[in-house]
Formats: sequence, structure tokens, C-alpha cells
Amino acid sequence: MDLTSFVTSLGTYFGIFMGLMIVYAFLSWRGGNNVVYYPNKILKGLEPLEGINKSRNPFIWMKVALVTSETEVIALSGVDTAVYFVFLSTVLSILVLSAVILLPVLLPVAVTDERVVKESLTSHYNQTVVDELQKLTMGNITEKSNRLWAFFVCCYWFSLVALGLLWKACKHVSWLRAEALMDPNVKPEQFAVVVRDIPAVPLGETTTEEYVHSYFEAIYPETYYKCMIVTDNRKANRIWEELEGYKKQLARAETVFQMSKTNAKPEGTRPTIKTGLLGLCGSKVDTIEYYNDRINETVTKLEAEQKITQSKKQQNAALVFFTSRVVAASAAQSLHAQMVDTWSVSPAAEPRQLIWHNLTIKYFERELRKYLVNAVVALTIVFYMVPISFISAFTTLQNLVELAPFIEPVVRIKALRTVLEAYLPQLALIIFFYLLPKLLLYLSKLEGIPTQSQAVRAASGKYFYFPVVNVFLGVTLGGTLYRTFKLIEDNPKSLLSWLVMSLPDNATFFLTYLALKFFVGYGLELSRLVPLILYHFKRKYICKTEAECKEAWAPGDLGYETRVSEDMLIVIIVFCYSVIAPLIIPFGVLYFGLGWLILRNQALNVYVPTFESNGRMWPHIHNRILASLILYQVTMLVYFGLQKFYYASLLIPLPILSFIYGFVCAKKFYPAFERPKLDVAAKSMGEAPDMELIFRSFIPPSLNSEKIDDENFEESISKV
Amino acid sequence: MDLTSFVTSLGTYFGIFMGLMIVYAFLSWRGGNNVVYYPNKILKGLEPLEGINKSRNPFIWMKVALVTSETEVIALSGVDTAVYFVFLSTVLSILVLSAVILLPVLLPVAVTDERVVKESLTSHYNQTVVDELQKLTMGNITEKSNRLWAFFVCCYWFSLVALGLLWKACKHVSWLRAEALMDPNVKPEQFAVVVRDIPAVPLGETTTEEYVHSYFEAIYPETYYKCMIVTDNRKANRIWEELEGYKKQLARAETVFQMSKTNAKPEGTRPTIKTGLLGLCGSKVDTIEYYNDRINETVTKLEAEQKITQSKKQQNAALVFFTSRVVAASAAQSLHAQMVDTWSVSPAAEPRQLIWHNLTIKYFERELRKYLVNAVVALTIVFYMVPISFISAFTTLQNLVELAPFIEPVVRIKALRTVLEAYLPQLALIIFFYLLPKLLLYLSKLEGIPTQSQAVRAASGKYFYFPVVNVFLGVTLGGTLYRTFKLIEDNPKSLLSWLVMSLPDNATFFLTYLALKFFVGYGLELSRLVPLILYHFKRKYICKTEAECKEAWAPGDLGYETRVSEDMLIVIIVFCYSVIAPLIIPFGVLYFGLGWLILRNQALNVYVPTFESNGRMWPHIHNRILASLILYQVTMLVYFGLQKFYYASLLIPLPILSFIYGFVCAKKFYPAFERPKLDVAAKSMGEAPDMELIFRSFIPPSLNSEKIDDENFEESISKV
Repeated sequence: MDLTSFVTSLGTYFGIFMGLMIVYAFLSWRGGNNVVYYPNKILKGLEPLEGINKSRNPFIWMKVALVTSETEVIALSGVDTAVYFVFLSTVLSILVLSAVILLPVLLPVAVTDERVVKESLTSHYNQTVVDELQKLTMGNITEKSNRLWAFFVCCYWFSLVALGLLWKACKHVSWLRAEALMDPNVKPEQFAVVVRDIPAVPLGETTTEEYVHSYFEAIYPETYYKCMIVTDNRKANRIWEELEGYKKQLARAETVFQMSKTNAKPEGTRPTIKTGLLGLCGSKVDTIEYYNDRINETVTKLEAEQKITQSKKQQNAALVFFTSRVVAASAAQSLHAQMVDTWSVSPAAEPRQLIWHNLTIKYFERELRKYLVNAVVALTIVFYMVPISFISAFTTLQNLVELAPFIEPVVRIKALRTVLEAYLPQLALIIFFYLLPKLLLYLSKLEGIPTQSQAVRAASGKYFYFPVVNVFLGVTLGGTLYRTFKLIEDNPKSLLSWLVMSLPDNATFFLTYLALKFFVGYGLELSRLVPLILYHFKRKYICKTEAECKEAWAPGDLGYETRVSEDMLIVIIVFCYSVIAPLIIPFGVLYFGLGWLILRNQALNVYVPTFESNGRMWPHIHNRILASLILYQVTMLVYFGLQKFYYASLLIPLPILSFIYGFVCAKKFYPAFERPKLDVAAKSMGEAPDMELIFRSFIPPSLNSEKIDDENFEESISKV
Repeated sequence: MDLTSFVTSLGTYFGIFMGLMIVYAFLSWRGGNNVVYYPNKILKGLEPLEGINKSRNPFIWMKVALVTSETEVIALSGVDTAVYFVFLSTVLSILVLSAVILLPVLLPVAVTDERVVKESLTSHYNQTVVDELQKLTMGNITEKSNRLWAFFVCCYWFSLVALGLLWKACKHVSWLRAEALMDPNVKPEQFAVVVRDIPAVPLGETTTEEYVHSYFEAIYPETYYKCMIVTDNRKANRIWEELEGYKKQLARAETVFQMSKTNAKPEGTRPTIKTGLLGLCGSKVDTIEYYNDRINETVTKLEAEQKITQSKKQQNAALVFFTSRVVAASAAQSLHAQMVDTWSVSPAAEPRQLIWHNLTIKYFERELRKYLVNAVVALTIVFYMVPISFISAFTTLQNLVELAPFIEPVVRIKALRTVLEAYLPQLALIIFFYLLPKLLLYLSKLEGIPTQSQAVRAASGKYFYFPVVNVFLGVTLGGTLYRTFKLIEDNPKSLLSWLVMSLPDNATFFLTYLALKFFVGYGLELSRLVPLILYHFKRKYICKTEAECKEAWAPGDLGYETRVSEDMLIVIIVFCYSVIAPLIIPFGVLYFGLGWLILRNQALNVYVPTFESNGRMWPHIHNRILASLILYQVTMLVYFGLQKFYYASLLIPLPILSFIYGFVCAKKFYPAFERPKLDVAAKSMGEAPDMELIFRSFIPPSLNSEKIDDENFEESISKV
């Protein structure tokens, strides 16, 4: 790629970005699109355009995003989102603060040396305009030159800035989490613990429920409130879903009926339906009557099933409720039984994020599943490189022909060639990467993880390796191998040295990659063109009732599990190249700056979080930033060595320092993310908690029916 | 060594053992020796010879040791001792149960093959009578022979027996520990927790005490009782020790005075003392008056110092007391503060085993110390082999001369040779191994470990490596290397194969080593000749007062830290040779059988435990037995491979099975040894605990004085 085309593509991306911004400003002003651009605010019952005061300035949303305080973000989108912004802003400030030194110092030092120009005149391959950019990198410094000292000092500066800001972020996030947990408002999950691996009911006790009840009442005579046994409610769930489906159909039929009452035909047309297979055959009946009948029928079935479930289908797990937040917090982290594979207790999570069917998996089965799933993921990481290699092979078909001329006849068949080169492998890769997060979430849930948020974290941890292996290693390795292929032949150095020496070249690729990401990617994110089109299409042709429309614009959540991993890839790239090719830093600043701004707007207006884990994601994020930092330090160590800089070993303290820092953080901060803290739980509550309300909030919807007599229901759930 | 001398030395050892037994029977009947042979019973206030009913049968003690139940052992010597016997009996039953199959099957199979006899006729080195014993080993089996299947099956049998019995032992010890912790008698440590890393007192609070008080009262408003701040009482300790010294001197002077009142001189001679340096110079004064004065003086000083210590020298650690056993158990394992390096809480230990000055060491300093100490120990393990190598070199001086004739002139100087060969290195080694447990205990305490029992466990963990490296690897490696030295020259196989092939030879050495250990070692243990002589000597020439006599026969404790490690060495040896040379099993049975019998007698009658950790040693012991088992399985795998047995790989499931077993045990049983269990703590108490008594039991003796007014004292300790 020559310099002109590089600048051109940057300009194109910027143009697309500006276009998308203007589209966004234009479309978001139209009231009809409010449900696409401000669903979070609408669902929270706020006025969508409040604070934007109808000014015709297309950049007003930027100002709003900038001035919104962290407290407002937490109020509108939760602590998890706020922690995500701490991550973005921490990386951003690391880059800005290091750029202040790195850019004015390193660029002049690099550009005034002349190694590349000299060498390329005598080099094997033709001089390209990539060299123009390469003049700005460490690769342009003559070996053993004293100029390397500038890079050396910057290495230290960058590391120290990063460690300092990470420490500050750790403290801030810990504080955020503590504040959230100290909240005087009642959170049901703070009064409950999950009890798993309940042993078989001994003789003398009749049900699991009584057993759990007597066990916990003996230990907590004063603060034990009630227990809720996890039941096998799959059948009840099925009936309940059926019922909900009928209710929707009924609502739809009624809307259709209402709409048919035109002026010409004021009595309207009652919709009809065929009762046979898929509504295609069978006798025609009145739809409204039909669904009313079905609903009544199903309600009776559901009530019967609920009773059976409550009494006969109790399983070996339970939720136990306490009247005190401190006791619940303390119970959640204490060992209750002599044998650790019985009565294992853990903190409860929000009702909406409990994965009920995982609660009943036994202790050692969970351990086994964890190992099996990790093995499967490891295999996937290793062997998905096989299609990637195929893709590389096909995209450089031309190169392949040069190396092995005998395949030329095959390639000459133009139709075949097009298919091979463009469609098949790309399509496979796109489908693979689209399905990957879902697959990983499914696998993580298979491990027996009890809560949605933990499953998301586990999936995110696994996803992390794919873009890293794919983009970072793939491009670095692939690009380097190809370019140095001929050089190696007559100049056999170690592979590693070739790899690292070509880092500055690859930097150019990453510059374009970053620009694409932040201009086009974030532009599309902001303008929400796809959801907008989908919404308008659905509203016009499919949705009839209010509920159906609401479903059509449901915005989903921020998508932690993939977003953090993709950002982390950028962190690795920017960190590793920061000193070698400092020009990448402004690109990193733009990525994290634009990301912060646009996602803040989206978090405030669009996305609705599906759960709240109070920032438990942080240790996960922090560990990976730290790993990137250590990777950067080791890369620099090797790179300095290859530049024959004799003081390279003076960089060794850096990774050691990072490891010590990581160890201290893991000891000091992480446990507070894993386990509840008693002094936080002991903060006084605003009001005395309504225990019955707390208890009821955990009842799964399929077992919670207002129609069933409350008295009986309570009795059947917990005989206290 | 030929067969005759082997049998002779066995006979000699057995003779010594019988002699010592008769000496024991004879001496223990004499009432004057009761304090040497029955100190534990005397200190417990029991009749020493109760149950032995003066029968003149010299083996009556064996019967008593055999019929004593585990409950009685716990009553007389504590749970820790009972757990030690579970260890001995488990290993014993593994050996007995495997011997039932191994001996009748393997010995005939081995002895009827003729490989050794055939080979040794053509071998490089002369046929010795060691071969007689070697005929009974796996080494006598012809390569690839089908007879190896017998050994193969025995391998499985031994492993399965070991795993089964270990599992049973784990369950039994867990039950023992739970029973001990459920004891309805009040144990002060069950009502207290240790709080370390108390942060600096914030503005607004005056003392650490008030700070701790308000912190814990907020979290446990109903069950918090009081706190005791750890103080810097070094000065008070010094004064208190001085005072105790004076009291002893006074008692001695009074006894001397009493004894001087003979019939001839009924008024007696008042002893005098010189007040100058070491009682050698200065003016002569009346001893009794002098010490009375000093005592009064010191008491005043102590009282003043106690007040200063309580008010001014409060440190950053405390004991916090709760009125409920469950709350204390739960608090001890809960996270209290946001930052984990502040307010770290752990279970309290018995007052007598708290290492007070370690409580105040800060969190990260403890971590750092742990790593430093482990580094030092690792260095010691590696480099103490240097003197061992020297010793090997000198003891085989003759061999050395053969290999390097030029040193012969030096060796010819007889005086020099004797010194070199016999005295210097041996003496160094003996002193080293005598001091080693003390050094390791000192190092473990330097880690910042808060309790004596934990320090002992840590020291024992470290000690384990020394005999293993020394005896097992030293002898196996050393012996093998020397014997195969010439063979290697013209037949270069891998070192490993030579090592393992010579295992049967080394077995002979270990047979003698074991016999020495159990006949002579346990004989000396039983007869207690050294403490007997020391006691009679001291009583005759040194002790004057009752207290001094009591000190002279103080029996000490069982000495866990070295005993378990030394037994573990035998476990490794016997396990590894069990199938290769089954003849070692009877020796192992004798070692653990005699050990069980004699130490049970000693535990019941002699040793007084200095602390009670309710069997927390078990995971430590269990892990090491399991490691021995895995080592045995890997050795067998290699050995079968070298015998060219093609089905050797069928042994691979064994170590995998052992690892899974270890994993399951670590998850299922170990946490109950680390942390208190709530359902155990919730067992009802016999009586309502007297909290003031519990609180007082933790006051260090130097700060606990009856003379100080109780009211004031309480106030100064805890202003509630």
C-alpha cells in the first residue's frame, strides 16, 4: 500500500463517518424514530429529547454525552456500564498521557535517522511508499545508535503511566462497587443465598423443604426467614409459554377485529382461524372465541401443574432467605457442612439472571463439566485456524500460482476462481464469527454456572483468544512470513528475530484497521441504520398490537461479552506498537475517545442492560489490560535486543514490576469482587425490607400466578 | 554385604530391642521412675499404674496400648495424637492387606525364575550373596516373561487397597475433627477471631480499641462482646520474666534454708548471696530478703508497665470476641472490608499457641516473608547436598583411591585419614540434622504465621524434603551410580534405566535401614534411657525445689514436625519397593506396627501435647502419602518398561486415578480443615459460656496479674 492510498482510505473512512453522523442527527430528530434512538429513556419513563432542547446543532449529542456524570450513567444504565466506561477512559488516558511525551520526542528522533532509506536502496525488494511511514518508527533507527535511549526512556514512561492509571481505576471501581452494594434500597439478592448440593433427605424428614428449613433454622435461629426449593418446572414452563402465546394471539385477533370496524362496516369482521395443522386445514372457527377457550383450558392445566411441581418436583438446590443483609453476606461465603460437596452455599444473584436448571447440577459434575468445556474451547481455538489458513491460501491465490504453476489451469476457470476466492471461505468465516459468541455463551452455560452474568464473563474470557489469535498473531505471523520468505533463504536468522523486526511494517496495516474500526464501526453503531430499517419494516408489515411493536424496537443490551474482547485486541495492538511506531497512539486515542463518546450516548439512550452484576467484570478486564502491558514489555525487550542495544536488559525490571503489581491487585482488590463484604453489607437500610416481597421476586414466572389463591400458594411454597 | 552378615545385623538389632524392652519393664516398675515413664498421667492427675495391676508380665504395656480406645487417646493426648495414630494404622493396614496377596503370590513367582543366577555367572562383578535376596525380587524375572503379569496385577491391587483405605481414613479423620469441634465444653478459641491489618485510626476515634469496637459492633450489633488489642508487650514480658526468675530463686533459697535446719542446727543457716556481677563479687546479703525486695520492686515496675502497655502500646491487630460460636465461625471466614489488606479476619487459635508478635505483621509483608523464607529453604535443600557429597566422597575413600591413585599418599597418613573418614563430616552432618528442625521452625515463624500449630505444620512440610533428598535419592542415586559405573562405559543406556534397574539391589540397604529404625530407634524411644539418666542426675545435683524437679522431668510433646516427615520417608521407601521387592513389606509392617504400639504407650503415658489443632495436620499427611503412592506408580511404570513388558502402558490409569482421587479429596475434605463449619459450630453448648472467662484466658501472662485491682484492669483492657 502506498502512502496516497493510505491517506485516501483514511479520508474515505472519515467521510463515511461524517455522513453517518449527519444521518444520525437528521433521523434522531424525527419523533417517529424515538423508539429506535431513545428506547432506554422511553422504557425508563423519561422524555427522550430532554436536555437536547431541540437545538438544530448536529453535534449536540456529543455535548450531552460529555457532560453526563457517572452517577447519571449508573442511574440510567447500571454499574456494569459505568465500569465499562472506566475501562475505556483508563485506556484513553494512558494513551493521551503517554502521547504527550512519546509523540514530540520519538517522531523527530526517528525521522532524522536514515537507516531505512539507506538500506532500502540496497534491499532485495522494491522501495514502496510504506517506507514513508516507516521513517517514523523505531525501525528507522540505526543499530546500536544512542538514539535508542529515547525509546528506552519512553518504554519506562509508558509502563509507569499505565500502572499508575490502572491502580487509580482499580480503586475507583472498587469504590463504585461498594457504593452500589451499600445502596439503602432493598435488593432482593442481598437477602438470599443459593444453596446447592443438598444431600438426600434423611429418614425422619419428609421433604427437601423441611430438611433445608430445619438445617438453616438450627444455624441461624434468629435471622433465617424462609427457603425456596428449586423445582423441576420444565413442564410448567412449557404450559406457561403456551399460555403466553395464546394471550398474544388473542390480543392480535382483537386488534384485527377492532381495525376491521371501519365506517363502512361498523360491526367489523370477526377473524377466523383453521384449527388444524399450522392453521392450514381443519374447520374454521372464530379466532377470539377459540383463543379464549384455549386460555381457560391452559390456565387450569397450569394451575394443576404448578401444584404438582411445588410438591413433587423439588430438587437438590434452594434459595434461602435471611432477614439481615449482613447475615446473608456472611452465610454466602461460609463453609456450612463438614463435607464440602454438600450444602455448598454461594451469594444469590438477581432473580432475572439466575440460570435455574444449572443450580441442580452436582458439585463434582460441575468441576468435570468445567474441564470438559475448557478442553473443547481450547481445541476450537487451535483448530479454527485451519479455515483461517485456507482463507489465507485462497486470498493469495495469485501468489500460490507463482509458487506452484501447475495449479494455474484450475485457477483459469474463471467462475470457479471467483467462487473460491471471494465467496466460500469468507462466508464461512463471517458465519463462524457471528455464531461464535453464542456458541461460547452456550458452552459456558453448560459448565453449570449459576448466573447469567457469570456465564457472560466466562464466555467473554473464552472469546478473548479468538480475535487475538486471528488478527494479531495471524497478521503479524502471516505478513512477516510472506515478506521475509525470500530473505530467510539466503540469510537464515531465527524466526523470532524476523517476526519482531517486521513489527514496524505491520503497524501500517493496523493503522488502517483501527481507522476502519472507529470511523465506520462506530459510525454505524451511532446511526443504528439496521435496527431502524428493521423496525420500520416490522411496524408496517408484521406488528399489529402494542406489545408486538414494543418487541420490534426492543434494543437489547450493550453486549459486554464481545465488546470487551474486541476492545482488548485494540489495547494489545496499540500497547505493543506504542513505542515502536508512536504514530499508532493518535489512532488509539481516536478509537477509545470516539468509542467512549458514542457508546456513552448509546448507553444513555439506547441499550437496556439485561442484568446488573455491580462491576464484577472488572478483575477480568484489568487482568487482560495487564497481560497486554506485559506482552508489550516483553516485545520491547526482544526488539531492543535485536536492535543490538546493549542496555536492553535494563528493561527486565518492567515485566517484574508488572507481575508484582498484578499480584498486589489480585490480593488487595479482587476478593471484594468475588465475595460480599460485611462492612458494606452492614450499612443501614433505608427501610425495613419487606421479606415477603423479596421472597416473591424470586418465584419464576411460570410458577407465579395471581389467580391461584395466595394463602394456598404460600403454604405450598414454604411450610414455615 | 553377604547374607550372613545381613542376618547377623538383623539378629543384633532384635537382641538390642529385646534388651531395651526388658530394661523398660524393669525400670518402669520402680515407683521412683514414675515421673519419667508416666508424666502425662501424673500431670493429668491419674494413678500411673492403674490398669497395669502390678502384674509381673513384662509385655503388659503392649496389652494396655492395644486395648486403649481412640476416645481414651483423645482424652489423654488430644485429637492431633489420635490423627497421628490414624496415619500409622492406615499405612499399617495398607501394608498388611496388600501383603496378604503380594507375599504368597510374588515370592514364589520370583524365586522360581532364574535370571539373576544365569546372568551373574557371566556378569562383570563378582557374585555376592546379595543375589540370594535378589532372587526374591522382580529383578529375578526374565525380561518379557509372562510372570510379569503377576507383578502387574499386584501393582493394581496395592494401589486400590491404598486408595480405599486412605478414603476411609479421610472420612474418619473428618469425623474426628467435627466431633472435637462439636464438643459442648467451652473452648475459648471458638468464640474469638483474630483481626489483623487494622488500618490507622481515623480522625474522630481516639484509640485503636475504640475503632475496632465501633467497627465490629456496627456489623454484629447483637453478638459482639469485646475486643482485645494486641499490644507491644516486649518490655512487660521482660519484667515479668525477671519477676518469675526472682520467684524461683526465692523458692530455692527458702528450700535451701529449710534443708539446712538439721537436728544438729535446728535454726538453720540463712543462705547469702553476693549482689555483684553473676553473684561473684559485691557485698554479701541475705538471699531470702534480697529476693523478697527485688520481687516487690519488680511487681511495682510490672504494674506500671502493664498500664502503659494497655493504653499506649496498642498495635494493629486484635482479638474480637463474640457471644455465639456460629457467629465467630462465620466471621472468621468472611470478607469484612472492601480492601483485602485491611481488617483481615481469621479463626482464633488456643491462647497458648498464639504467636503474638507475628499478629502485627502487615498483609503484604507476610506475603513477601513467605516467598523469601521459601527461597531460603529451597536453597538449603539444594546446597546442603554439598556436605552430603563430601561425606559420600570420604566414606568411599577406598573407592576413590582406586579411581584416582594419585591421592593415595594423602590417605596413607593414618591420623589424617581417620579424622577425615570418621569424625569431621559425620559430626557436621549430625549437628546439621539435630539443628535442622529448630532452624525450620524458626524460619516458619519468620513467615509471620500466627499460631504455633501452623508454624509446626509449615516446618514439617519443609523438613519432609531433607530426609527424602538425603536418604532416598542419595542412596538410590549414589549406590546405583557407583555400581553401574563400569557397566555404563561399555553399554551406554540412559541413566534413568540404570537407576531403576538397580532398585532391587538398593532394597537390601533399605531392609537393614528399616530394621535399625524400628528395633533400635523404637527400643530407645520406649526405654527412655536418656531422659531417665538426665532426670536422676538433675534431681541429685541440681534441683532443690518441687518446681525445679517438675521441670527436670517435663516430658515435652510428641514432636510432630520431625516424626511425620521421618515416617513419610519410610512410606516412600516401602511403597516404592512393595512390588519390586515384596520382602520389604514385612519390615514396613514391623516399623508401623511397633511404632503404633510403642508410640501409643508413649502418648498415653509420657508425652504432653503443647497444643491442640484438632487434626489440622491431616491434609498435610494425606497429601504426602498420596504423593508417595504416585511416585510408586510412576516407578513401576518405568520399571515394567525396562523389563520390556509390552503391556506396561496399561499402568497409566493408576497415576491418573490417584490424581483424580487427590483432586476429589482436596475439594471434598480439605476445606473443613481450613475453615470452621457452621453446622458443626451450631451444635448446642452444654452450658452458657462465661464470656469474661473466655476473654481472660487470652490475656498474656505478663499482662495478667491478680494483684492489680480487677475493676481497673478490666476498664483498662476494654472500654466497652
